Amino acid sequence: MTPTITAFERSPDRGRGLARDMRVRWALEEVGQAYEVRLVSFETMKQPEHLARNPFGQIPSFEEGDLILFETGAIVLHIAQTHDGLLPADPAARARAIAWLFAALNTIEPPILERQTALLLERDRPWTSERMPLIEERVRARLAQLSARLGGADWLDGGFSAGDLMMVMVLRWLKGSGLLEAAPNLAAYVARGEARPAFQRAFAAQRAVFEAAEAAG
Amino acid sequence: MTPTITAFERSPDRGRGLARDMRVRWALEEVGQAYEVRLVSFETMKQPEHLARNPFGQIPSFEEGDLILFETGAIVLHIAQTHDGLLPADPAARARAIAWLFAALNTIEPPILERQTALLLERDRPWTSERMPLIEERVRARLAQLSARLGGADWLDGGFSAGDLMMVMVLRWLKGSGLLEAAPNLAAYVARGEARPAFQRAFAAQRAVFEAAEAAG
Repeated sequence: MTPTITAFERSPDRGRGLARDMRVRWALEEVGQAYEVRLVSFETMKQPEHLARNPFGQIPSFEEGDLILFETGAIVLHIAQTHDGLLPADPAARARAIAWLFAALNTIEPPILERQTALLLERDRPWTSERMPLIEERVRARLAQLSARLGGADWLDGGFSAGDLMMVMVLRWLKGSGLLEAAPNLAAYVARGEARPAFQRAFAAQRAVFEAAEAAG
Repeated sequence: MTPTITAFERSPDRGRGLARDMRVRWALEEVGQAYEVRLVSFETMKQPEHLARNPFGQIPSFEEGDLILFETGAIVLHIAQTHDGLLPADPAARARAIAWLFAALNTIEPPILERQTALLLERDRPWTSERMPLIEERVRARLAQLSARLGGADWLDGGFSAGDLMMVMVLRWLKGSGLLEAAPNLAAYVARGEARPAFQRAFAAQRAVFEAAEAAG
């Protein structure tokens, strides 16, 4: 059964692979599962048809037969639990890989999203330049702990897992900020994720959607 | 095998059940699993012994034989997957309940945490009073979507699940703010969660730790 995901018909990140469909595309590519894509606009994603798929009016969603899922963490975990390749077989190692998936989304991403919010929604506010160092200090504190745990390893706990996939995607928000680059082992970790053939295929697929929209004008 | 969790020896929330061990205690009470508690202080939680359990120096952690887990989402999911009572048996319903667990942590909690951060870490900054309405508007937008999806139902998708447990815990940050109370069906949903006997037992257990610390001076 070929699943269908939703994605932006014209991603606001201009094809840089930061929109959240990239997380799901990468997971599907890692496990070798083909998929269909339904494109939505900023208008159609707030309509009842899409809200039935994702109650928060966001992308992506994931449809597979009667099952409709939202939340990238849940979708990636579902893909990982129903295919080989993204979670170890040993139950304890599997639980730890899932802990890293949650850590990416609930410990590392929140201060990074706070920075994104300041840059996108509060850019013109008088306080943002003075506030940014406080936000970045909170991001740096989390990156320092993550860097200490990763050390010289390739991945967070044994082989590449769904936890690494999500952590790499979350850290990619920071590319070019100087924050990621200040932790060389984390920058190398992100580069290692991006070098995976499945990442490359997913990246090319989301980029092609953006380029087609641009070409159509 | 009796698991051991970590918790604050003197919780900064003064026993109001907002510290994250409450999420794990409640899950353990729902499935009828006894547990031990190891108390840590703000000093000992930054030491290598605790960082080995939780690389971000936070509570809770969860130890069960050789398995050591961190992240409340991962711990609650592990408890739910290894016991009956927190996830439906049907695979599709189970995946949807897990989606609500992620939605609580990655869609609803981030703007609420941004508000908590402003209240705790930026309270004395000159911009906070002017900025708070922007933050609260972002919280309100998510609550409106959640309220619309919940409608008149008791729980988010069928019977009570790990997703409801986490959503109730995340919404509890807002008690008394007026934001939760402005969505009566969400306020009633939180009250419904808090009325569960398992919640009550977990709440009493964490409160007893705080009261013992206060009595010891």
